[in-house]
Amino acid sequence: MKIDLIISADDISEVKTKGKTVVVIDMLRATSVITTALNNGAKKVIPFLTVEEALEYSKDNRKNFILGGERRAVKIEGFDLSNSPLEYVKELVNDKVVIMTTSNGTRAIKGCENAKNLLIGAMINAKAIAKRIIELDNDVVFVNAGTQGQFSMDDFICAGYMIKLLEENDNVDLTDVAFTAKHIYESHEDIQSFIVNARHYNIIKSLGLEEDLGYCMKKDILDIVPFYENGEIII
Amino acid sequence: MKIDLIISADDISEVKTKGKTVVVIDMLRATSVITTALNNGAKKVIPFLTVEEALEYSKDNRKNFILGGERRAVKIEGFDLSNSPLEYVKELVNDKVVIMTTSNGTRAIKGCENAKNLLIGAMINAKAIAKRIIELDNDVVFVNAGTQGQFSMDDFICAGYMIKLLEENDNVDLTDVAFTAKHIYESHEDIQSFIVNARHYNIIKSLGLEEDLGYCMKKDILDIVPFYENGEIII
Repeated sequence: MKIDLIISADDISEVKTKGKTVVVIDMLRATSVITTALNNGAKKVIPFLTVEEALEYSKDNRKNFILGGERRAVKIEGFDLSNSPLEYVKELVNDKVVIMTTSNGTRAIKGCENAKNLLIGAMINAKAIAKRIIELDNDVVFVNAGTQGQFSMDDFICAGYMIKLLEENDNVDLTDVAFTAKHIYESHEDIQSFIVNARHYNIIKSLGLEEDLGYCMKKDILDIVPFYENGEIII
Repeated sequence: MKIDLIISADDISEVKTKGKTVVVIDMLRATSVITTALNNGAKKVIPFLTVEEALEYSKDNRKNFILGGERRAVKIEGFDLSNSPLEYVKELVNDKVVIMTTSNGTRAIKGCENAKNLLIGAMINAKAIAKRIIELDNDVVFVNAGTQGQFSMDDFICAGYMIKLLEENDNVDLTDVAFTAKHIYESHEDIQSFIVNARHYNIIKSLGLEEDLGYCMKKDILDIVPFYENGEIII
């Protein structure tokens, strides 16, 4: 399979994603949140680009919804939860519909609606994603959400890990950027020694959210594959 | 100084390059050609986007001009030289005006005309470029020409080398992508062990142009800084 990579939400190109298996990665933290919420029993996650859309959609039957997300890495006024995956515990999200809006991740997901299959990936479910990609047997584009339209080291190494897993289990044809991501992972299999230099990592750290960082860097702890279809993310 | 990097000619953004010191890199091979031609006495190099523009510009006084460049890595019909730096010897280019059109490099140069300073860099003049950047004392954006609008490993590691040189001699503030380029260089100081995996490297190799590759991967053999101003590249 051919494997390509897009470095940020600003760089998404319809030509590149159309008809492909696309994996959107925003490991710090949107796609880690989505994966965690679904693993803890949320019925589905509905991503919105704006706070206004999220509030409008949930205003009737508000109690059925959990509103989560961030702007500038902090919780949005009137929302239930922030963009911390550790907040999305079973007691809060089980059987609920989670409404999400974040700065980078939801934008990346919405930008790839022309994909054939649109999967939601993070370090915490990387192996499950790689397995599903192989089952789908289609060309793949990893879409890194990035940070504010910029390349982000955390998403890049996360894609690199998945590409490494694919290479171990299938014949792969890598573009230069996909090769480079894999190469970065191979030289930093612990992840943290690379990510510790990322700007976004340090912003989250400066907000006192080290626990989030520790959680999001864990490999393969969840065996689920969230996918986006008709505006909703389910497993 | 702040240091950012743009991964291909397709990703050039006017907002990012405006007012900055921009270094355009197409080490395989356009910026290696330009640097070599000027080092061997060419009066100037004039880049054009299209073959038609190049022919039109040079049709009067044809003997004063050397026409060089490539499409699909091979020489253009009616041109004097291809995109091989080794062809631009003193006997041919001394005191001549070189007209260039290439698939990626000239497009990248033309895309950055709003830069404050627009330098032309390659491995062969990396140290000279780094020294000039420090003298100019301005924020820097490395613009990788890439290949057909895509990220290219050769340009990425070349920028990484220059960023490494800057870090050794100045206070630098690196974006994630600039950090990653430097990091790739640090783990492959020989250059070739990384570039050998690049698609573009292998295309050039398949054309039997190993000598070009060997030349373009040499570090710091030329001590000149070509710069672009008013449509022309001089030193």
